[in-house]
Amino acid sequence: MYFPSWLSQLCRGLSRPIGRTTQPTWGSFSRSLALSSQRRIPEFSSFIARTNTCGELRSSHLGQEVTLCGWIQYRRQNIFLVLRDFHGLVQVVIPQDESAASVKKILCEAPLESVVQVSGTVISRPPGQENPKMPTGEIEIKVKTAELLNSCKRLPFEIKDFVKKTEALRLQYRYLDLRSFQMQYNLRLRSQVVMKMREYLCNLHGFVDIETPTLFKRTPGGAKEFLVPSREPGKFYSLPQSPQQFKQLLMVGGLDRYFQVARCYRDEGSRPDRQPEFTQIDIEMSFVDQTGIRSLIEGLLQYSWPSDKNPLVVPFPSMTFAEALATYGTDKPDTRFGMKIVDISNAFRNTEVRFLQDALSKPQGTVKAMCVREGANYLKRKDIESIRKFAADHFNECSLLGKLRLACADLLEMKGMVLRDPAQFSFLWVVDFPLFLPKEENPMELESAHHPFTAPHPGDIHLLYTEPEKVRSQHYDLVLNGTEIGGGSIRIHDAELQHYILATLLKEDVKLLSHLLQALDYGAPPHGGIALGKLVLFFL
Amino acid sequence: MYFPSWLSQLCRGLSRPIGRTTQPTWGSFSRSLALSSQRRIPEFSSFIARTNTCGELRSSHLGQEVTLCGWIQYRRQNIFLVLRDFHGLVQVVIPQDESAASVKKILCEAPLESVVQVSGTVISRPPGQENPKMPTGEIEIKVKTAELLNSCKRLPFEIKDFVKKTEALRLQYRYLDLRSFQMQYNLRLRSQVVMKMREYLCNLHGFVDIETPTLFKRTPGGAKEFLVPSREPGKFYSLPQSPQQFKQLLMVGGLDRYFQVARCYRDEGSRPDRQPEFTQIDIEMSFVDQTGIRSLIEGLLQYSWPSDKNPLVVPFPSMTFAEALATYGTDKPDTRFGMKIVDISNAFRNTEVRFLQDALSKPQGTVKAMCVREGANYLKRKDIESIRKFAADHFNECSLLGKLRLACADLLEMKGMVLRDPAQFSFLWVVDFPLFLPKEENPMELESAHHPFTAPHPGDIHLLYTEPEKVRSQHYDLVLNGTEIGGGSIRIHDAELQHYILATLLKEDVKLLSHLLQALDYGAPPHGGIALGKLVLFFL
Repeated sequence: MYFPSWLSQLCRGLSRPIGRTTQPTWGSFSRSLALSSQRRIPEFSSFIARTNTCGELRSSHLGQEVTLCGWIQYRRQNIFLVLRDFHGLVQVVIPQDESAASVKKILCEAPLESVVQVSGTVISRPPGQENPKMPTGEIEIKVKTAELLNSCKRLPFEIKDFVKKTEALRLQYRYLDLRSFQMQYNLRLRSQVVMKMREYLCNLHGFVDIETPTLFKRTPGGAKEFLVPSREPGKFYSLPQSPQQFKQLLMVGGLDRYFQVARCYRDEGSRPDRQPEFTQIDIEMSFVDQTGIRSLIEGLLQYSWPSDKNPLVVPFPSMTFAEALATYGTDKPDTRFGMKIVDISNAFRNTEVRFLQDALSKPQGTVKAMCVREGANYLKRKDIESIRKFAADHFNECSLLGKLRLACADLLEMKGMVLRDPAQFSFLWVVDFPLFLPKEENPMELESAHHPFTAPHPGDIHLLYTEPEKVRSQHYDLVLNGTEIGGGSIRIHDAELQHYILATLLKEDVKLLSHLLQALDYGAPPHGGIALGKLVLFFL
Repeated sequence: MYFPSWLSQLCRGLSRPIGRTTQPTWGSFSRSLALSSQRRIPEFSSFIARTNTCGELRSSHLGQEVTLCGWIQYRRQNIFLVLRDFHGLVQVVIPQDESAASVKKILCEAPLESVVQVSGTVISRPPGQENPKMPTGEIEIKVKTAELLNSCKRLPFEIKDFVKKTEALRLQYRYLDLRSFQMQYNLRLRSQVVMKMREYLCNLHGFVDIETPTLFKRTPGGAKEFLVPSREPGKFYSLPQSPQQFKQLLMVGGLDRYFQVARCYRDEGSRPDRQPEFTQIDIEMSFVDQTGIRSLIEGLLQYSWPSDKNPLVVPFPSMTFAEALATYGTDKPDTRFGMKIVDISNAFRNTEVRFLQDALSKPQGTVKAMCVREGANYLKRKDIESIRKFAADHFNECSLLGKLRLACADLLEMKGMVLRDPAQFSFLWVVDFPLFLPKEENPMELESAHHPFTAPHPGDIHLLYTEPEKVRSQHYDLVLNGTEIGGGSIRIHDAELQHYILATLLKEDVKLLSHLLQALDYGAPPHGGIALGKLVLFFL
């Protein structure tokens, strides 16, 4: 049995915060639970014996009899004890009088991280002993009864330093890691954001949440798929890379507006930003064009955007694939900063500098530059050398200039220049991708730039039959701060066109997709969609 | 590649309505879309070119210029055309004047089930031509422009009779089946009910929606699992039967209130009510007891209950496992009707009837009876014979009497007696199950009646060490009209107790669960949960 990363996956992909500048603490947690500002706060203590959470008690609760459940975070001189739950911390006064000896014994002897239930009265802290850094810092609990619910064995390390431990230790004891503020925040925020997305799609815009199967058959092209042996020897299911075919068939079925928070699978090994199974917000609509999908997504993000961030400005800017490549050297530009790539070939048409002459004499040869403002103040000879070496190492990659731009940015930020504000969210639509790319293993043949169901750009249909490599597609990517967080397209709804692209241009075995081709023939509406992923990473 | 049932799974388990009495039609669809009564109706036409859905137009829209998209359902004498979308039907008047020849050509020549977009004015139907059976029956559309969006090839059958076709044909052309009112209703109702459940759990009671991995390692015991070969030769993932272990670890991690609409897998072949992959509403809470879970679920069902059904009455009645077996001969009694099983042994203590004497002389021998009221009026000699034969055929099954009760009910209903009203919802909690059962293959050994993490009944803990077979558990089932629609338990949170049950009583290899045992040692809170499935089937 294989068991490498399930503990890590408890918080799939959420353990590496991107873009957070300040370290949050339990002190700030009560605020964060009210993230969804206009909403009523949920009842966290319904159906159970506790009356309140540890994090919610304030001066307004003075005199109330409360029952709390939580973990022993800290104990001071057998007089005070700090109790913790997911909501925050509260100070408990351990009774010292003889009549409460049994309560004292329980609270003093239980090891840290043991689980206890205490009942008592909310009282003011004595004057001068308030703790303004703690949301519950004005009050404490005068305990009457206490029960040890579970004792904690001696931990292999001190929990307060746990987050500084190695990743391997955090994964091994994932349930301890999850008790930290940061992990609680991550999981709860993700849950809230996805819930708001559901409200927007389902309640406001009539989308239908439909679960599609994950035991599927192999799809031609695309990523490597996990196989699942069936009960029939020699026959296998495959775990789908996405619900692409299902959602298109749902459109043919008249479902009109579909969404799913869909589990997807790719057998491509783990990378920091990619796991073998992952989740995407999967959307498909009938009778829609690119503009419609873009407005939908802009509205979706605006609606589900955490209220403690700056509100989103929509519509997002858009840029063609060609412009992105020319200006940023990549199809997913980080537009938080400038340092654009500029074509300065014309300035060197008559140059006598030999390597520039050489470059310009090649077909489509160009000379490009990037202006690093204040570069001279920040970069020393050693830095210039490292940039030169970076360029030499990546010389044959067409995306060299884009990489060089990011490498320069890294270098400048190390020197103290502020280029990429992690609190800034620069969304960008990238459009007009090519429909096909030359196959890597045989550049004379074509493969889909995205997938074979992507519709060609209406202005380029005629080129399909003459110069297919020049056809632009109706694919669009949503890019945030230099990361692709979503992509989609208007799909082909014409069976003949789909057949021509699959059979003639891509030379695929159409039998594998005969069910889809047939469906297109029986009244398929025009349709398109998108899938979003990775977004929540940016909030953490 | 294996590809048996994915089309059927597009509507996982929703193709066999249980309990519906009247066949719904497009006419009733507009009503059904407003199922969630207090809510604002979603904007079904945002982001796209259409202004309205076909099903929503009324007299109040008279004079409005509208654009509709839909499928050609029906055409009459090239004068009228009925356009359909997911929302309903609307009549379109095909223009007959010369100037609109191109529009007429499009609308008259397009085959049925072709997709068209029409723009025009909402007008009254001429007096006497209103159709009161049709929600849009007071109006029709005077068309100005029409566009053929996709032509439908000749279908292999007439779509209006499609639902009467064989199951196999419906599965082959699932996208055509999905265009029917019933399938649209099923999928949309399911989406709405699950959305309301999410609102209740997430927004009202602070539950966190957490996705757990599906590439997992094998769990000891339980159903046969699908295996997924990994990249390391000889090593496999397995697809989990449920997120049981994950959710318990989340509780140890202080997540407090977890839920997930969870995909689960069992490699046990398909049955009418069971597919290899299925979905359950999966819930776990810390610091909770049985009463708490039961109240939570009663509130959940009340909140998400479709508004066109009779409101639910809570709390649901409960019954012990022993009482259910004694009174109904099954642990999932259909309590919509009586015909309870009665122990009449005492009446026969002094009988001279030989077979009764024999029965009573055996250890725990009993004589039981069931009163079929008015049976003499309904059942003829032939029926009595068939009951006798049924009893003889099932004689050695201990659940004979429960089966006999249902067989009698079937027979009585065939004769016209009304016993089980499909519109009635009789919920029942069944509690106090045994913790262990004798192993089928070796009755001297024990196996878990449910799973090894189920906590023993507090009143029976002492029996664990002396007569474990007599220990009751803290498991509970939720039964609706004779079907188990949910089950759960308070879990063991004590590592020592869990180890004793696994190693000593169940003789499992504890190494396979060492991660869970260790987690229980590091401050696991008391916790319990439940999983619900199949429920939506009852609404359809």
